[in-house]
Amino acid sequence: MKDARILLTHGSGGESTRDLIRQLFLPGYGNSQLNLLTDGAVLTNVTAQQVFTSDSYVVNPPFFPGGDIGALAVIGTCNDLAVMGAVPRWLSLSFILEESLPIERLEKIVQSIQRTAAEAGITIVTGDTKVVERGKADRLFINTAGIGELHIPQALTPARIQAGDAILVSNDIGRHGIAVLASREGINLEVDLLSDMALLHPLIQALLNQGIDLHCARDLTRGGLGGALLELADQCGQDFRLQETRVPVSETVQAACELLGFDPLFIANEGCCALFLPEAQVADALAILREFSAGRWSAQIGTVLGNGTVKSAAVKNGGVFLENAYGVERLLAWHTVDQLPRIC
Amino acid sequence: MKDARILLTHGSGGESTRDLIRQLFLPGYGNSQLNLLTDGAVLTNVTAQQVFTSDSYVVNPPFFPGGDIGALAVIGTCNDLAVMGAVPRWLSLSFILEESLPIERLEKIVQSIQRTAAEAGITIVTGDTKVVERGKADRLFINTAGIGELHIPQALTPARIQAGDAILVSNDIGRHGIAVLASREGINLEVDLLSDMALLHPLIQALLNQGIDLHCARDLTRGGLGGALLELADQCGQDFRLQETRVPVSETVQAACELLGFDPLFIANEGCCALFLPEAQVADALAILREFSAGRWSAQIGTVLGNGTVKSAAVKNGGVFLENAYGVERLLAWHTVDQLPRIC
Repeated sequence: MKDARILLTHGSGGESTRDLIRQLFLPGYGNSQLNLLTDGAVLTNVTAQQVFTSDSYVVNPPFFPGGDIGALAVIGTCNDLAVMGAVPRWLSLSFILEESLPIERLEKIVQSIQRTAAEAGITIVTGDTKVVERGKADRLFINTAGIGELHIPQALTPARIQAGDAILVSNDIGRHGIAVLASREGINLEVDLLSDMALLHPLIQALLNQGIDLHCARDLTRGGLGGALLELADQCGQDFRLQETRVPVSETVQAACELLGFDPLFIANEGCCALFLPEAQVADALAILREFSAGRWSAQIGTVLGNGTVKSAAVKNGGVFLENAYGVERLLAWHTVDQLPRIC
Repeated sequence: MKDARILLTHGSGGESTRDLIRQLFLPGYGNSQLNLLTDGAVLTNVTAQQVFTSDSYVVNPPFFPGGDIGALAVIGTCNDLAVMGAVPRWLSLSFILEESLPIERLEKIVQSIQRTAAEAGITIVTGDTKVVERGKADRLFINTAGIGELHIPQALTPARIQAGDAILVSNDIGRHGIAVLASREGINLEVDLLSDMALLHPLIQALLNQGIDLHCARDLTRGGLGGALLELADQCGQDFRLQETRVPVSETVQAACELLGFDPLFIANEGCCALFLPEAQVADALAILREFSAGRWSAQIGTVLGNGTVKSAAVKNGGVFLENAYGVERLLAWHTVDQLPRIC
């Protein structure tokens, strides 16, 4: 298959589809369930309450510094489960392929999927393959759904955020968005800037297992930290104070943002989450997080103020105050959310 | 939103994404779980073993005689669960939208999704929205994953097919593929030919509930009846005899196939399945099926011969003999599977 390319017949449901599945997908990430090639997978040994999530991946370019669309699809889906407090278990993985895609590229992505799924401890149990004509998609899109298990009595949700909670971020922000953007636009940053792609459930499970009373977690993908906090404040009806100087940003990301005119607060991440927990447990939580490379730069970045402190026509429910280096506060607004397309 | 079109910012994760979700998706098919807008949905009241499936939909055109991509996505996913013996319960629904898609069209599709999901008794609990630049997708693609529940001790699988089993088809074949193709190519068939789109779990559950010892079921989508039987014969290692004259095909589909040079055996269906059950229960099963409009033309079309009757280098595992009107038998081969792209 080395010099071969994807043809429309690979999506026909006939012999070519079978060949692609048997020669590429099953050797890549097959297992006893996927190998059955039935219309669905029976989930066995269900031992806890389940969480269900779904995502599409259209990142451009599909290979970027620090990762590719395959690893991203696995990590992104696992992280959506992780921030609900769940442990990822089962994954569906489907492709929409553009006719003429080199099969060698697809093979690299399949290998990357396999490696990442193994690291995550998730099993790919079902999938689907479609092919569209050249020019009707952009190389490949990946669709996933994930099922995870809750080993805590209830899922982490915005409704559990309380006045007085500390707001933490699990690592420094902005690396994924800037890495993808620089790669796409051919911008030479003169430093090695890689996506921050990382699995979050090991960190979150470690917090839970070591007695941290975690109230809520949210991964900082599209919209970045700023977008996530705006959404959470709105969902829980509480106001937040975010202290800009405490937000960890690497010098590289800071420099790139200044060069390109972006605010790191609104740049997408793929290995970073916001965490809400009692102020009294902050030191313990940071000590746990910093044992992980994906938690090395974790920090407290703000506080939950409570309900009704924000007086503004622009804020229906909860709002976010951003306090800058000079102690000046301004209200964070949705229209400041960055609009970089196809970052995941 | 009437004259509005999809913009890249609708996929940014910011205010426009929120607007699209709150003004279009939630009013369309929102519910207490989806409305939470968390990263995943907690599945509640799990009472039985679960089946998990996933699909992508790229049908061209997205609106076709008898349906659209929205209804198709719900029905196709429910049917994948149905043929495993499961009752559909939870659905994830994600969009990949092309910039410039008229929002009015998306609204029609959302309505169609809502109607079909309500009919199926499935709840849309999670989803995702991505937007790609104009020319990087073809209007819209839909990705789904479904979770269903098994109310029988084990799922229907090819391994349960036995020598002597009758092979039934649940309705006349070929309507979906021909309807989509005619619509796409602007072929005027001078008759009303609609897709056969229909939910299969009501039929399959009726069979199971009324004591039919169903061994296996398979929906006849890409590759049609011929492709499905070839795959099943290979998976179960049994040989099948398929009697061509007993396969129900409407006059319209027959005429269209003759005109266009297609074999109805290999045309995709979206409301039709093959069923394997004991010969002694055929009359009972047909009586049950024919109470449904999607089972009106159900018929026995063949028999499972057993293992090792096919002697051919082309057949590794089980094979399919096709017996024609003159009693002549030929071996069905994979390369005869139709290659119509983007039929689902």
